[in-house]
Amino acid sequence: MINKLVEKIRKTKAPIVVGLDPMLNYIPDHIQEAAFSEFGETLEGAAEAVWQFNKEIIDKTYDLIPAVKPQIAMYEQFGIPGLEVFKRTVDYCKAKDLVVIGDIKRGDIGSTSMAYARGHIGKVSIRGKEYTPFGEDFVTVNPYLGSDGISPFIDVCKEERRGLFILVKTSNPSSGEFQDRLIDGRPLYELVGEKVAEWGEECMGEEYSYIGAVVGATYPEMGKVLRKIMPKSYILVPGYGAQGGQGKDLVHFFNEDGLGAIVNSSRGIIAAYKQEAYAKYGAKNFGDASRAAVEAMVSDINGALEAAK
Amino acid sequence: MINKLVEKIRKTKAPIVVGLDPMLNYIPDHIQEAAFSEFGETLEGAAEAVWQFNKEIIDKTYDLIPAVKPQIAMYEQFGIPGLEVFKRTVDYCKAKDLVVIGDIKRGDIGSTSMAYARGHIGKVSIRGKEYTPFGEDFVTVNPYLGSDGISPFIDVCKEERRGLFILVKTSNPSSGEFQDRLIDGRPLYELVGEKVAEWGEECMGEEYSYIGAVVGATYPEMGKVLRKIMPKSYILVPGYGAQGGQGKDLVHFFNEDGLGAIVNSSRGIIAAYKQEAYAKYGAKNFGDASRAAVEAMVSDINGALEAAK
Repeated sequence: MINKLVEKIRKTKAPIVVGLDPMLNYIPDHIQEAAFSEFGETLEGAAEAVWQFNKEIIDKTYDLIPAVKPQIAMYEQFGIPGLEVFKRTVDYCKAKDLVVIGDIKRGDIGSTSMAYARGHIGKVSIRGKEYTPFGEDFVTVNPYLGSDGISPFIDVCKEERRGLFILVKTSNPSSGEFQDRLIDGRPLYELVGEKVAEWGEECMGEEYSYIGAVVGATYPEMGKVLRKIMPKSYILVPGYGAQGGQGKDLVHFFNEDGLGAIVNSSRGIIAAYKQEAYAKYGAKNFGDASRAAVEAMVSDINGALEAAK
Repeated sequence: MINKLVEKIRKTKAPIVVGLDPMLNYIPDHIQEAAFSEFGETLEGAAEAVWQFNKEIIDKTYDLIPAVKPQIAMYEQFGIPGLEVFKRTVDYCKAKDLVVIGDIKRGDIGSTSMAYARGHIGKVSIRGKEYTPFGEDFVTVNPYLGSDGISPFIDVCKEERRGLFILVKTSNPSSGEFQDRLIDGRPLYELVGEKVAEWGEECMGEEYSYIGAVVGATYPEMGKVLRKIMPKSYILVPGYGAQGGQGKDLVHFFNEDGLGAIVNSSRGIIAAYKQEAYAKYGAKNFGDASRAAVEAMVSDINGALEAAK
């Protein structure tokens, strides 16, 4: 699946991923009205609004982008109906040939990690019959529990040719509280990065490993160091746009081949119609605003990469 | 909710929690046959088997125990039908007046953590109407992202009087890979423990805080130190039984008041009928085997606490 991701990034010339993290207040009134009048002001109604919102954004952007990253928390908050829409979104994106990164940040140990891995990027076997419960192509994983937590995910990646992005240095302001603490003179995130590189060697695709890392756009200097520590790992970079990162901050997350990083934007794309720059589209045409925001983001990042050459 | 947990531990004299982590191979054939013949060899069939298995164990143990801890991964692996049974299990346990600890190990930042918190221990508001998507009393949370990840959970705990158990030192063999690394001469898990104590002060119940910690039974010496660092935090202790911990290893996880720790056993209770010691019950009476295993576990722990006085 890392090979497909690289191929799609080359083809679209867009090293970006659209974060499908819908909050109800991002969803235009006309979509909400239709959903709530059909399903009531219920979890089902909220989930339907999310689905119609997602579908329009996917329809208006899928030909420009290699991948999407649905954030499962935004679906899980609406209980079972929300999770049904998570699954429907994954299926719809795959039918559009998009690579789907499930932002699930799971992490446990042994058979429990195996259960998450099979449920999200693998198959479960029920008396010899196989089912694909969620079916993402990649998932994000939390490393705090160490190798015991990661290795069941890696086993499933090998079987299924799916991939991981392991949290290394997250984009939030307090990420340094534990991640930056010095161990033998080096920050914890570097040690986690070294483990990612080591785990990644077990699981190589053609050019890059199936095992990638998450490193926030908000920490470009750390991105530079981590790029060298994990040369064969794709870096998923959150924090662009709304969280403060810009194209010029991102150049060091990439390798010299122009590959190696994929930058996420969520609110900046899916709620673009709420920004002054895209207000002209209006709430009715929110999908067109998202398309324009994708084009601007690609241009910003590619421009910064060109300028850095 | 911490007050209710303490009260129930006092009343049952059982500082234990039954981990409802069903794997298909724990579930007796007669339960599987009935479920698969009704729903087919499908995710729905597997979920039904899990539900019938859980129900019998709850019915046979609820009067002896204060709390249960369903591990969501074991339900999530069966997709939507699995998660429906997770929710049904939570509801059933609450109707039996058990405290429910959702072992979800979620952890993200900002609005994403808030979505998990509302979905699991809070309410979501849909145009002013409130819903309780999953409705656990406590959840486990991963601290790797720092305070930004934890504070939305704490906000919901304050509003709803629910609680957290934050991963500090996990029970698995490789937990030391990152958690034990020395920072200014002290292991990372101690720094996380200090933060738990600090977060816990914001959120006190009568005797203990709403914010507890997870510390594995397999590391009793570390438990001793962490007990002192977090005097007002309940410690959820996994790793008893199948993972190697025994009653005598656990005394230092408790405070002098005989409170402050709750020990989890999953496989040791729910699959007790597969152990030699309980084989006499047979697979048909697996619930009675679980009841006997609960009684033995309570006796082991209370005996160790008495001996340590």
